[in-house]
This record gives sequence, C-alpha cells and structure tokens, in this order.
Amino acid sequence: MDDGEKQNFGGGQEIETPNNITIKGIIGLLMGSTDRNDNRKVISLGIGDPTAHSCFHTTAVAQEAVVESLRSAKFNGYSPTAGLPQARKAIAEYLSRDLPYKLSQEDVYLTAGCTQAIEITLSILARPGANILLPRPGFPIYGLCAAFRHLEIRYFDLLPDKGWEVDLEDVEALVDQNTVAMVIINPGNPCGNVYTYQHLKKIAETARRLGVVVIADEVYGHLAFGANAFVPMGVFGSIAPIITLGSLSKRWLVPGWRLGWLVTNDPDGSLKSPKFVERLKKYCDICGGPATFIQGAVPTIIEQTHEAFFRKTINMLRQTSDICFEKIKEIPCLSCPYKPEGSMAVMVKLNLCLLKDISDDIDFCFKLAKEESVIILPGLAVGLKNWIRITFAVEPSSLEEGLERAK
Amino acid sequence: MDDGEKQNFGGGQEIETPNNITIKGIIGLLMGSTDRNDNRKVISLGIGDPTAHSCFHTTAVAQEAVVESLRSAKFNGYSPTAGLPQARKAIAEYLSRDLPYKLSQEDVYLTAGCTQAIEITLSILARPGANILLPRPGFPIYGLCAAFRHLEIRYFDLLPDKGWEVDLEDVEALVDQNTVAMVIINPGNPCGNVYTYQHLKKIAETARRLGVVVIADEVYGHLAFGANAFVPMGVFGSIAPIITLGSLSKRWLVPGWRLGWLVTNDPDGSLKSPKFVERLKKYCDICGGPATFIQGAVPTIIEQTHEAFFRKTINMLRQTSDICFEKIKEIPCLSCPYKPEGSMAVMVKLNLCLLKDISDDIDFCFKLAKEESVIILPGLAVGLKNWIRITFAVEPSSLEEGLERAK
Repeated sequence: MDDGEKQNFGGGQEIETPNNITIKGIIGLLMGSTDRNDNRKVISLGIGDPTAHSCFHTTAVAQEAVVESLRSAKFNGYSPTAGLPQARKAIAEYLSRDLPYKLSQEDVYLTAGCTQAIEITLSILARPGANILLPRPGFPIYGLCAAFRHLEIRYFDLLPDKGWEVDLEDVEALVDQNTVAMVIINPGNPCGNVYTYQHLKKIAETARRLGVVVIADEVYGHLAFGANAFVPMGVFGSIAPIITLGSLSKRWLVPGWRLGWLVTNDPDGSLKSPKFVERLKKYCDICGGPATFIQGAVPTIIEQTHEAFFRKTINMLRQTSDICFEKIKEIPCLSCPYKPEGSMAVMVKLNLCLLKDISDDIDFCFKLAKEESVIILPGLAVGLKNWIRITFAVEPSSLEEGLERAK
Repeated sequence: MDDGEKQNFGGGQEIETPNNITIKGIIGLLMGSTDRNDNRKVISLGIGDPTAHSCFHTTAVAQEAVVESLRSAKFNGYSPTAGLPQARKAIAEYLSRDLPYKLSQEDVYLTAGCTQAIEITLSILARPGANILLPRPGFPIYGLCAAFRHLEIRYFDLLPDKGWEVDLEDVEALVDQNTVAMVIINPGNPCGNVYTYQHLKKIAETARRLGVVVIADEVYGHLAFGANAFVPMGVFGSIAPIITLGSLSKRWLVPGWRLGWLVTNDPDGSLKSPKFVERLKKYCDICGGPATFIQGAVPTIIEQTHEAFFRKTINMLRQTSDICFEKIKEIPCLSCPYKPEGSMAVMVKLNLCLLKDISDDIDFCFKLAKEESVIILPGLAVGLKNWIRITFAVEPSSLEEGLERAK
C-alpha cells in the first residue's frame, strides 16, 4: 500500500474522532506514572469497579443462577433482540415494585450493560441539529456517545452547596426547541447524591414544561445509605416521559456481566408511539446485546437474591463512605461540601492555595500517583476542574491507607 | 402529556427510522401465519440458528470453560473495552494459524457477537457522503447498520452461475472516491459459497486498485464441507487492507454467547494509523461488549476444543446440505444453481411459471407457512426477489419432512 493510500482509503474527507477524555484513559495514564521503585502496592481510588476488592463480591445465588442457565443448554441460541421475554418480565416486575403503576415487559429492553443503554438512548433520540443536556460534573460516556452521534452537548450545573441538586434555572436557560433530553444521574456519579422526592418531582415538572425527555441513569439504583431514600424517577412518569437506564452491574457487583436495561416509563404514551418503539426495536437489531444465558438467569437472580446481600453491600458502602469523609476532613487542602449518601464516589474540592507547587487537579493526581502510588481521578475527567473524584467502594484498609498517604 | 407534545417531544424534525426488512421480522410474520389447527409441528428452515436443534450443540469443553471462568470470580469486573488481553491474544493466535503473518493482540477487538463487529466497523468507517458496497444477495444487518449511520448503500451482484462469485466488473462500476469499503461474506450467507483462493485474491487486488477496504465477514469461518477449502481473506492483507469479522457463534454453535471479534489484517499499515486505531478504541468505549467471564474462557475454548467436535459439525452440515440439495432436485418448481459448500444456508430459485396462484417469493413463503407449517425465508429479505433461502443446519429428519411438505 503506498503512502498516498494509507491515510485516505476510500478517499474523501478525514473522519473526525471525538477527543473526549475518558475515565479509563486518565486512570491508565495515572497508573503508568506510579514509581516502580516504590515497594508499596498501588492503591486505586479512581475507578468505579468494586469487584477489584474481595470484600465486594456478588452473591452465590446470582452466580449459580447463571451456571445453571448455561448448563441447561437452552440458552445458547439468539434471544429476541429486545431481550428474552422472561428476563424483560422479571425486570419489569422488579422495577414496578417501586412505582405507582405496572411496567409491562414491552417497556423493557435488555442491553449489554448500562453503557449500551446509554448508547442506544442517545442514538435513537439523536437527529440533525439536536442538543442534549448533561450534568456537570457527570459521567463522561454521555459526552462520548453524544459526540459520536453528533448531538450538541449543553452542560447544566449541579450545585455543590445544595447537595449537588440540579440547577433548574440553568436548565431552563439552556433548553430550546432542539433539545431532546436531559440526563439525571441518581444516585449520583460522581457526586454521591441521592435526590429527594421533591427535587425529582421538580425536575420532572420542569422537563414537562420544557418538552424534553428525562433520561434517568439509575445504574446505582438502591445504593443509598444515607438519610435520603432512593426514589426512582419513573415515579413521575405521568408528569414527563422518562427513560430509565439501569443494570445488574452495581447492585449485584457484576459490571463484567454486561446485563443492563433501557426502560420507557411513560404511562401516558409519548415514548410508546409506534414510531418511537419501532425505531428502538430496529436499533436493538444492530446492538449485539447481552449473552442469552445471562438473560436466562435474570428471573432467578431477581427473585432469589436475599435482602441480606443487599444490606451487606449498603453497610459496607456506608462504612467506607464514612471513613472517606472523616479522613478528608483531616486533610487541610481537601474539602468535601457534601457527604455522599449513595453510589460509590464523592467529589472533593482542592484548595490549591494550600498546595505548594501544584497547579491544578491533573497536576495533583499525577504527583499523588508518582509520589504515593495512590490513584485518584482528576475532576476535569468528569467536568469539574480543580476538584477530584474519590471512589470508596474499596477495601476499608486500602481506603484508609490511600487517604493517609494522600495526606 | 397533551397531544401536541406526544409526537414531538424535543420539538424539531421527525426522526427517520430505516424501513429495512429484517430476517427476524419476516420470520416472525411467517410464524404468525401458520395454521393453528394444523397438528403437525412447525418446521423452520428460515433462521440461521442451529442451536434450536439438539443435534447441533456446543462442546462441553467450551461450556465448562465458561463455568470455570465464572466461578473463579476473577472476571466479574469490567474488561478493557477492546477486550481482555488474554482473549485478544488467543484469538490473534487462532486466526494467525491460517495466515502468512502473525496477528498481534492489538489487531483484535472483542465485540458482542459478529453483529456488533459489523456495527462498529460501519460506524467507524462512516462519514458524510460516504458509500459502502454490499453483496446481493447478502445479510440484511449490513443494510440496517448502514442506514442508521447514513452510509449510502450500493449493491453489487453475486453471480449464481459462477458459484455466487463477486461480479467484479459490477464492483468497478460502483466504486467512486466516496466508497469506504466493500463487504465479502465467505463462507457465504445466504448462498453457501466458499470462494477459491484465486477469486479472493482477485477481490483483494481489485480493492487495492480502487482504494477501498475489504470487510471480510467470516462468521462462518471454517464451516466449509465441499470441494473448496476455507481461505481467510486476511491471507491477502498485504494486498489490500482487510477488516475481518468473526465470532464463536457458528463454529462453536453458541450464537447466544455474543462473543465476536473485529480484526485488522493490515501488515502494511493503513488500518494501523494512530487516527484509525484511536477512533476504533474510543468507539469500543461506548459499545458495552461481551461479558468479561466469557472473554476469560476464550483461551481455554480456543486451545482445548477437540478437532473431533469441529469434524462432527462439518459432517452434519455436509449431510444436511446433501439432503437439502437432493430434495430440491425432486421439486420441479425449485432450482438450485449451486450446491452449497459452506455455511448453513442455500439460495434456491422459484420457477414461478410452474406455480399456480403464486405471485412471488413472499406469496410462496406465506402460503407454505399457512398450508404446510414450514417456514422458509423469501429471497426479498436478502436482496433477491423470487428466490428463497433455506437453512439446513437442522435435524435431518425435520429437513426431510419440511422439504417433503414443500413438495
């Protein structure tokens, strides 16, 4: 192949690739910066994957349900692209427990994890000239999907002094007739917020008034360990059309199983228009989706997981978030405006004036990696410069040591 | 929600959904047309999923490799988005056995089945104004992906009288400076072709001359049971840039496991440009991908599956393709120009003049479903009107009975 062809096969324009920062990208760089001569083990408080720690492991009920499903040899073939009916039904029933109406299995679409649910949602809502409202700080996969689908992104602020609530005035100022949706992450990544019923209701009413869909990212659903109970956005489905995204990944501690869902909460109908449903179904045809035998295990997983397992996870997260918050208080250059009430992460502000020779959050995190072998995510990766995100779904001893070293 | 908002949340233009026919869509309609009063069981020769038949089942080696991987509890977390290194390495080695160079694990990207590999490939090649060449007859998922990504489709003919070879003159006439790629399905779905070394080489040389990438869909790789041996397109990677798509689905009889791959065969480099690789990697970040524990089992699956298992599948396909071809010869209104040499399907022409009261392939298939409870796919679904596609990865007795009823 000669040089003239190398860069330009197929001729025509250059393809533009989004230049978004990804969490995994930055974490990779930080890991690469650690000092190999440092005998201490690297402590990562950077990524939202609890399974790296043996204290966070799934329940044998779920694992054995999948083994049985696989060994039955009944699920080695293709599932319908929206998902196996029994799995869709089980998730519809599971979610309906916390809703004032019953979801039907037709409202549930199975996806390869919540990441794919995000990708599908943004892809089917995208159209030329459209824009989407994303929270800042937020979860970078939304930005990456939006970029690939040519959706204009508009960021609205979350308010650190108000428990990271949505700045609804900011939202009102940003919405126009091309806005297709706004994304709400609750329980919140990266902030650890668990919104009140009243706040969620206000969000729904605002969405209704402005004519936008609410994309409710509930991947951390039920992982609330503070004062506020988890309230699913779908409760307000009769106020505004809601698309709820979720998965087994966090609550069951199995992000590697890639079993997620996209659910239309819209008892009054605009997300049930034949056109919308047809588009969504057709899109599922090109997605790949989750392994059929994992889907086959979903009814058993949902029905037979013991409450004790869920409580154990909640207790550990409460414990580690406490450790985290207390330790941060001991470190003068860090301040945390809001003690996390849910999910697995917390946003912490850097007081740069108290830090010598450190210019910003990126500098702080790279020096921390190099000098102390501790990995923490710079806030820039999630949209807030000069803050940092600490994940606390970690062995308590590692968390303590990591924050001690950070001191 | 009032009516004015129902169809138009987010305002602006209507979203256009591709109106492509899908195989699953038509099969669903045909199944719905069968006569419920007919006591005979429905025989489907319509869909490419052999696992519906107990004679086609995977090897215990593969199944137990996945069980062990799951139970190790080492693979419940996220994999890197391009795939677990050991799985990428195992597939690179597996494919390299049949290539004149060694693939590196960096050439291999794991996907949720071959469907997702198709979706990723078309998405990363797409750009404004681009077109892609697809075979006719072909596999409808390509058309659906192209439509969602706004890639213009141009169909080139396969020649029934020349073993369904590619009409390269047709290809030359269709390519222009906006053509990004041409798709070659070998072994072929729906035609059952297995191209010769010489023909594949000519395709590669044509692609080089015209400056297009070859997308080599080898999901039926190694499933060749006739005179021609399977030759991977990657053999010609130094002639033209090749993207090879494949999966465990067909050769291991596990389409439900969603373990596929996208491989860049380009020892001379245009698919290894930093820009291309970066785009591909970033795109993998939004895909979801295959379950980590299934990836974890791949090295064992690749290394320890016995040749005997592969031979058994080949023998069964040889047997059922023979039955299929012979039975078709007995049916005057059907003619098969090319006895299948690979994959799991064959294209058969309808002699409409010999069929009373039947107007076309759709009519034929619906009447067959209704009157005989036999499901066969109308050729329109794969791009050839008045032909039909018969899948023979079926219990031999069902195949015989189905074709007997068709008579």
